[in-house]
Amino acid sequence: MTPESLRELLRRFRSGELSEDAALEELARLPFRELRDARVDTHRALRQGLPEVVLGLGKSVEQICEIVKALESSGVNVLVTRVEPQAAHEVRRELPQLEHRPEARLLWLAQQPPHQPGGQGESGSIAVVTAGTADSPVAEEAAVVAELFGNKVERLYDVGVAGLHRLLASIDVLRSARVLIVVAGMEGALPSVVGGLVGRPVIAVPTSVGYGTALGGVTALLGMLASCASNVTAVNIDNGFGAAFVATLINRG
Amino acid sequence: MTPESLRELLRRFRSGELSEDAALEELARLPFRELRDARVDTHRALRQGLPEVVLGLGKSVEQICEIVKALESSGVNVLVTRVEPQAAHEVRRELPQLEHRPEARLLWLAQQPPHQPGGQGESGSIAVVTAGTADSPVAEEAAVVAELFGNKVERLYDVGVAGLHRLLASIDVLRSARVLIVVAGMEGALPSVVGGLVGRPVIAVPTSVGYGTALGGVTALLGMLASCASNVTAVNIDNGFGAAFVATLINRG
Amino acid sequence: MTPESLRELLRRFRSGELSEDAALEELARLPFRELRDARVDTHRALRQGLPEVVLGLGKSVEQICEIVKALESSGVNVLVTRVEPQAAHEVRRELPQLEHRPEARLLWLAQQPPHQPGGQGESGSIAVVTAGTADSPVAEEAAVVAELFGNKVERLYDVGVAGLHRLLASIDVLRSARVLIVVAGMEGALPSVVGGLVGRPVIAVPTSVGYGTALGGVTALLGMLASCASNVTAVNIDNGFGAAFVATLINRG
Amino acid sequence: MTPESLRELLRRFRSGELSEDAALEELARLPFRELRDARVDTHRALRQGLPEVVLGLGKSVEQICEIVKALESSGVNVLVTRVEPQAAHEVRRELPQLEHRPEARLLWLAQQPPHQPGGQGESGSIAVVTAGTADSPVAEEAAVVAELFGNKVERLYDVGVAGLHRLLASIDVLRSARVLIVVAGMEGALPSVVGGLVGRPVIAVPTSVGYGTALGGVTALLGMLASCASNVTAVNIDNGFGAAFVATLINRG
Amino acid sequence: MTPESLRELLRRFRSGELSEDAALEELARLPFRELRDARVDTHRALRQGLPEVVLGLGKSVEQICEIVKALESSGVNVLVTRVEPQAAHEVRRELPQLEHRPEARLLWLAQQPPHQPGGQGESGSIAVVTAGTADSPVAEEAAVVAELFGNKVERLYDVGVAGLHRLLASIDVLRSARVLIVVAGMEGALPSVVGGLVGRPVIAVPTSVGYGTALGGVTALLGMLASCASNVTAVNIDNGFGAAFVATLINRG
Amino acid sequence: MTPESLRELLRRFRSGELSEDAALEELARLPFRELRDARVDTHRALRQGLPEVVLGLGKSVEQICEIVKALESSGVNVLVTRVEPQAAHEVRRELPQLEHRPEARLLWLAQQPPHQPGGQGESGSIAVVTAGTADSPVAEEAAVVAELFGNKVERLYDVGVAGLHRLLASIDVLRSARVLIVVAGMEGALPSVVGGLVGRPVIAVPTSVGYGTALGGVTALLGMLASCASNVTAVNIDNGFGAAFVATLINRG
Amino acid sequence: MTPESLRELLRRFRSGELSEDAALEELARLPFRELRDARVDTHRALRQGLPEVVLGLGKSVEQICEIVKALESSGVNVLVTRVEPQAAHEVRRELPQLEHRPEARLLWLAQQPPHQPGGQGESGSIAVVTAGTADSPVAEEAAVVAELFGNKVERLYDVGVAGLHRLLASIDVLRSARVLIVVAGMEGALPSVVGGLVGRPVIAVPTSVGYGTALGGVTALLGMLASCASNVTAVNIDNGFGAAFVATLINRG
Amino acid sequence: MTPESLRELLRRFRSGELSEDAALEELARLPFRELRDARVDTHRALRQGLPEVVLGLGKSVEQICEIVKALESSGVNVLVTRVEPQAAHEVRRELPQLEHRPEARLLWLAQQPPHQPGGQGESGSIAVVTAGTADSPVAEEAAVVAELFGNKVERLYDVGVAGLHRLLASIDVLRSARVLIVVAGMEGALPSVVGGLVGRPVIAVPTSVGYGTALGGVTALLGMLASCASNVTAVNIDNGFGAAFVATLINRG
Repeated sequence: MTPESLRELLRRFRSGELSEDAALEELARLPFRELRDARVDTHRALRQGLPEVVLGLGKSVEQICEIVKALESSGVNVLVTRVEPQAAHEVRRELPQLEHRPEARLLWLAQQPPHQPGGQGESGSIAVVTAGTADSPVAEEAAVVAELFGNKVERLYDVGVAGLHRLLASIDVLRSARVLIVVAGMEGALPSVVGGLVGRPVIAVPTSVGYGTALGGVTALLGMLASCASNVTAVNIDNGFGAAFVATLINRG
Repeated sequence: MTPESLRELLRRFRSGELSEDAALEELARLPFRELRDARVDTHRALRQGLPEVVLGLGKSVEQICEIVKALESSGVNVLVTRVEPQAAHEVRRELPQLEHRPEARLLWLAQQPPHQPGGQGESGSIAVVTAGTADSPVAEEAAVVAELFGNKVERLYDVGVAGLHRLLASIDVLRSARVLIVVAGMEGALPSVVGGLVGRPVIAVPTSVGYGTALGGVTALLGMLASCASNVTAVNIDNGFGAAFVATLINRG
Repeated sequence: MTPESLRELLRRFRSGELSEDAALEELARLPFRELRDARVDTHRALRQGLPEVVLGLGKSVEQICEIVKALESSGVNVLVTRVEPQAAHEVRRELPQLEHRPEARLLWLAQQPPHQPGGQGESGSIAVVTAGTADSPVAEEAAVVAELFGNKVERLYDVGVAGLHRLLASIDVLRSARVLIVVAGMEGALPSVVGGLVGRPVIAVPTSVGYGTALGGVTALLGMLASCASNVTAVNIDNGFGAAFVATLINRG
Repeated sequence: MTPESLRELLRRFRSGELSEDAALEELARLPFRELRDARVDTHRALRQGLPEVVLGLGKSVEQICEIVKALESSGVNVLVTRVEPQAAHEVRRELPQLEHRPEARLLWLAQQPPHQPGGQGESGSIAVVTAGTADSPVAEEAAVVAELFGNKVERLYDVGVAGLHRLLASIDVLRSARVLIVVAGMEGALPSVVGGLVGRPVIAVPTSVGYGTALGGVTALLGMLASCASNVTAVNIDNGFGAAFVATLINRG
Repeated sequence: MTPESLRELLRRFRSGELSEDAALEELARLPFRELRDARVDTHRALRQGLPEVVLGLGKSVEQICEIVKALESSGVNVLVTRVEPQAAHEVRRELPQLEHRPEARLLWLAQQPPHQPGGQGESGSIAVVTAGTADSPVAEEAAVVAELFGNKVERLYDVGVAGLHRLLASIDVLRSARVLIVVAGMEGALPSVVGGLVGRPVIAVPTSVGYGTALGGVTALLGMLASCASNVTAVNIDNGFGAAFVATLINRG
Repeated sequence: MTPESLRELLRRFRSGELSEDAALEELARLPFRELRDARVDTHRALRQGLPEVVLGLGKSVEQICEIVKALESSGVNVLVTRVEPQAAHEVRRELPQLEHRPEARLLWLAQQPPHQPGGQGESGSIAVVTAGTADSPVAEEAAVVAELFGNKVERLYDVGVAGLHRLLASIDVLRSARVLIVVAGMEGALPSVVGGLVGRPVIAVPTSVGYGTALGGVTALLGMLASCASNVTAVNIDNGFGAAFVATLINRG
Repeated sequence: MTPESLRELLRRFRSGELSEDAALEELARLPFRELRDARVDTHRALRQGLPEVVLGLGKSVEQICEIVKALESSGVNVLVTRVEPQAAHEVRRELPQLEHRPEARLLWLAQQPPHQPGGQGESGSIAVVTAGTADSPVAEEAAVVAELFGNKVERLYDVGVAGLHRLLASIDVLRSARVLIVVAGMEGALPSVVGGLVGRPVIAVPTSVGYGTALGGVTALLGMLASCASNVTAVNIDNGFGAAFVATLINRG
Repeated sequence: MTPESLRELLRRFRSGELSEDAALEELARLPFRELRDARVDTHRALRQGLPEVVLGLGKSVEQICEIVKALESSGVNVLVTRVEPQAAHEVRRELPQLEHRPEARLLWLAQQPPHQPGGQGESGSIAVVTAGTADSPVAEEAAVVAELFGNKVERLYDVGVAGLHRLLASIDVLRSARVLIVVAGMEGALPSVVGGLVGRPVIAVPTSVGYGTALGGVTALLGMLASCASNVTAVNIDNGFGAAFVATLINRG
């Protein structure tokens, strides 16, 4: 409930259009309506121009279509993450208005212009850095989401720690970013190295890339958390979306 | 190598004092000399008014004293973390100029005024939130470090999820912060709940508080990373310092 | 051995038909014969109007059919849990008298009216609460089983901790229940929050929903056991049936 | 805010005593005031005659004393759990009014008569069962807490599964209980066996008793959760208090 | 080197056909030649009438056929374990002389009469006991292997600890065995209970039956090793063959 | 209930002293009374000349003394395992009749001659083999217990797999044993090697010797269970007593 | 930046073509340019005659083809590891010039003669040893890679520790190698045994062969690292390529 | 059996002093006698000038003294590793001839000149590199052992990946080594970075330095094994000695 509608309710009560009991009834449900309003309030994504987000992982094509349609009718931008190619194909047969970003496993429905960041400070760029080519799907999820959220994104891929020269050759890209998303599987050492090279927040994204002792991303994650660089925080394994979400909040100042 | 010494080298070469081969030799080794200069460059903490930080955990009193003296002579602010009461007492017998913050297990040597944040945008406050009273040492490490780094800090302690009313009663504190540090042990649910209430980055700090299935902080950490709230990132178990470090970088805009 | 047959034995002994040694021999083996009777006694489910339960997981269609037929002939109600759609289809081709509850992955054969709870006290309702929509299959298993066992069930779905307002808006439903089943995957924080809001037993059911650090339900489980709310107990991952079974025993007073 | 006070507010607004802006202001803050009221509501322990509980584990003597004094002044009963003998001695030097139950590692301050259970139904007894003598401290914590909470408690100790006859010899005690707390370390098999013998809820408490593959209680816990008996739920390792708390809620009907 | 060839060497040396140095040279390499003979010696299975055993798990149909043919030509009995139905079908198309035991996932080629146990003492029977019906494939592997190895086998299936009466009703079977193989998944409590009832060695076989905290057999295994019964040893998860092998060695006296 | 008292009951019934109903009542409770008799029956250790065993680990000197005194009065042999030197010293100050075997961490009270094995077959010797000198305490626990249980024991220590010649030099000792106890920490490879050299049951005892990836004995245990030798079973980490117990049961034929 | 271009820069500066500031600017960026040159330097594989290596695992046929073509044009030898049969077939339909080594899961493009080792010392042979036949694919990966890298390779397969005689019979092969690669799954004991027999470096390769407590290679790995032989180091599970790579570096002297 | 005694045996046989059967008997036992000789043969350390090594960890002062004395009498060099200061002090009170290297936790008895490496090729230097100062004890163990084994050692300490410039400034030291030992705790990223900079074998030593997700060295170890650099192998956590041992074998060519 917006302040305006609450004001309206009070006026209708004073004018007699609404009986005391009806007003009471209405207001008695306020805490939660208010919370329902708060719900909108916590729908900060919408208010901030961020789209509604649906995790496609483990949902059927039918479920995805149903949810997207419901969100579409509310006029917001809609983002579906973790959509495999075949599922994306089937969803778009029913909802051809969705844009498909296969490299990032995303479906996207733009109904509003992307939010222009700014807030308190001038926003900068988000650098998305990967250790190996196999980390690309997660990195693209992060990069495309960050772009859809209105950020300027710089990609720096395949600069793993076993070939430092590639990383160092692009140190300007790293140092000019407001916040960095560093994506790595296997031993997950890249965020520590990048963290030591820059004075900005580094969001580390472990990936499930690798075999054996890579333990499906757990080794990379543990290493990122035990990092000797103090400016590194981590998100869940393969969670490119979450990294982009937090990076956007940081970038907006 | 400072710009001045490089300029000097060039002049000596032009003047003939240095042969082409000698100059070449000198310059060929530049990358690492330059990097030795860059070393200063990566001393971003110093340049940004952040103190040099020494992890006290596992160091002897002698080692702490030796390192602090070396840093003191360079004129920077010095922060020693994870110092147990007895060790702090002994260090200060030799170095009484160190300030002791026992609640945060910190020693502090101020030789310069705290950095005034600002940067691109206006900086805000950092909220430090805990689930239980046993999380206080870690939270105080975060809060005091953030203060020493020049941030405005709001503390909100003992508002664990099993007593939601306490948390909700202080929702204004949560919503007014630029970035939040949420400290919790046991099941580590608080960052998810706080993350759902605010539109700002939440840095989750798992603590080793609890017993049995709390697994010394691992359960809280896993839960924070698997959080259903998209604005949550995590640092290592009990790493209050790291959370404050990143929060400062975010807050500076 | 029934009381009747024991009485008969005694009579045969007194009449001299059975010698002392023969009676002694017979009686010496009583413990286990008696226990064979006790076997019926531990068939508490049957006596209490609860159905016989078959875990479908890992059983072939043939095995399920064979067991159901054997139980059918004894006149009891029969419940088969964890039956995937295709298996359910095939079982019902042979046993069309089975009712299929696909949303709960259950097959159900009603041969007796549901038990009317009551016992010592008046029974109440069981609330089944979920954190996310992906937890529904497990929750439905719990809810439908509880209904089939004769309980009144209130469903409250998709009220995860990252959107507290949805949960708080239904606090009356939570508080009016005699016992609550709270189903959650990922970080599994919901039972702690619900536990703090009510004064009744909360049975937490971790689900294998999530990815990465969700560890297939282990993280949710560990968190539920390390819960800061004292009224929470846990069952195995995805064990909706078990939660409903215990909730029924609690609800019967 | 009660309905009455809300009605009053509406009247004051209609009468003009309250301006539209003032009413709006008042109503806008309703959710949390209401929740602030709920705060009292969640103090269910107090309302139900249960004592306030303080986890002594990891708290200093000073901290325990300070908290107990604060609670004492509010007139409630106070329970301190996990107090080692030396700490208990020191606390009681300052607060001799506390009763010490060393076998259960509890301190107890009775300021009100124990709550008489009853509620909807007639309450029964709680059976506390252990596998071995080493499980006694945890079992005593459960048993004494249950007694202090007003329950009738039956103890059945040292009836582990490798000596079934001891367990079976006391089957009447098991079957007459309204709810059972079964405490076991090592392989933790006892709750499964007891669960198969009774038709009541069994709360399993794993203990950290054992060595090697007992893994400090983790093996017992995993086994209890994977139990083939459907009426078993589990609490955290060594959490005798939690088991007694839930058992009390179940027993009260 | 057979005794005969060694004797021959000695004779050639004495006859002067072989010089001292040549004989020395020949003998100096004896350890490994001798060990090559010892190779036959460690073929204890053959000498004891036990078949050669091939682990089918992870081998292709071609590989199985090739190995079986090689062994067939040497005249020994051949046992192939862990053969899935389709693979067994294909192997027998090429080698129809193999007997198929689908319930035990075994292929069997009898070329010699089963060994008649006896040895030092009179051999007894081996009891194979299971907790649930889902443990049958592993139990049948153990039972059929034990039979093929010439043991008398008693099966006692589906006597899990949650229904003690079934187990106790057959206590005579348990007590009359020379050695017991107890097969259980989930919480794996049955070997502890059986171990307490008998005075003979109990070989515990954990199975991968169960879900969630059963952890694919790890929970059962850990519990069996932490057993409170002193006469229990364990083999690998699902290793019915190994249990039968050891039981045979024990039974032979 | 002894056979005598049952016979008495029958006579009292026939004489009319006991009514049919009273006899029925009495007999109906027989299972557990009978089992109470069975209780003695499961005291197989006593009947077989094995001592009563007390696990000293985690028990106080007072508790050990109390239990030993109780057992002493019943005339049986008593064995206390895992007694550290200081505790042993204190126990023997009160109970000087106990023999101390410090190398095996055992206390021993002989009140009866050791049982002479034999049973069905001729018993043989038990070989106790260790990989390194650090495994000695566990091995001695096994060896001394086996001796106290009346077995002939052969020790073969410090023959780890990294120095095969030492092991092979004693192959006669290995091959002449009826059953082998092989004790190893670190990578725990010795039981596999020994298992391949002999045709008898090998009981593997992992020890907590080692550091890092030895994981306190878990690595050795896992390796022993995954052994490529089919005649190996395992007991819990450091459980020398359990190995000796089972070896004795095997050796008795 | 090559020495030539640096020399050129100096000349342009001395000639006045470049101002001091411009030269300074240019030189200030040297570190990373220089490192860009270093990039070639770290292409040690190429310089040493080692091929470029592509990990096929998890790459699509399209990706493999694209990378191979790019490398082919640079004239180097190309090695693709972990290529399953079907993928290899499809890749070679497009790139028939690739040699397929199915037993080692490798594709190989030779454009240059294999490097002739030598370096400082005379290179020796690499022994590749396996415990069981199921370890062959990993061993062949190691053996073929080592051959393609120009080493002499001796294979010694299926000499697991449960049949020592086979291993000992080939001790000459073991002792004549300059470096040994020992491949084993299950309990992974072979490297310890081999390590004790030779005075050369042993590279242990755990394989994912086995079931249950083999834990997909983790048990073998842990055991190899906890080895009692001091000359053993380990690589990742199933990493035959890495072992061959390091062995080549050792063998080259 | 020495060649001489074997020659003697042959002569006694030819002379008729020994019958054919007696000679056969004698020779049949040769394998293990011969292996008893081989025992000396596997004393490769001695033959190669390497000292005998005693792991001090977990040994008492008495045990250390006894072993050292035994070895001293055989004239070899003796190395005792992992000796804590107090123990070293006590050992040297009895054996003052031992040299103490406290920084490396070693005791050292030189009775022979250090072996001069060389072998097939020219030996080079061993670089010992650490990530942080806390890794020094392990690194010093490696460095001092390597020196005692006759290698030239270059130390490069405290060059962790979060401060790359320090590492790069010493790249010449890295590249001039024949083999590198890289010691790191926490996330253990340094070996991957160093591995990418050099074309020589890198032996990675994880240390137990760190807290929380460092998991006592397990995280560093897992990361080292999952390294993206192909020239990295790993040893056990904190195993500086093992790394030096293997590095020496590599360095000797």
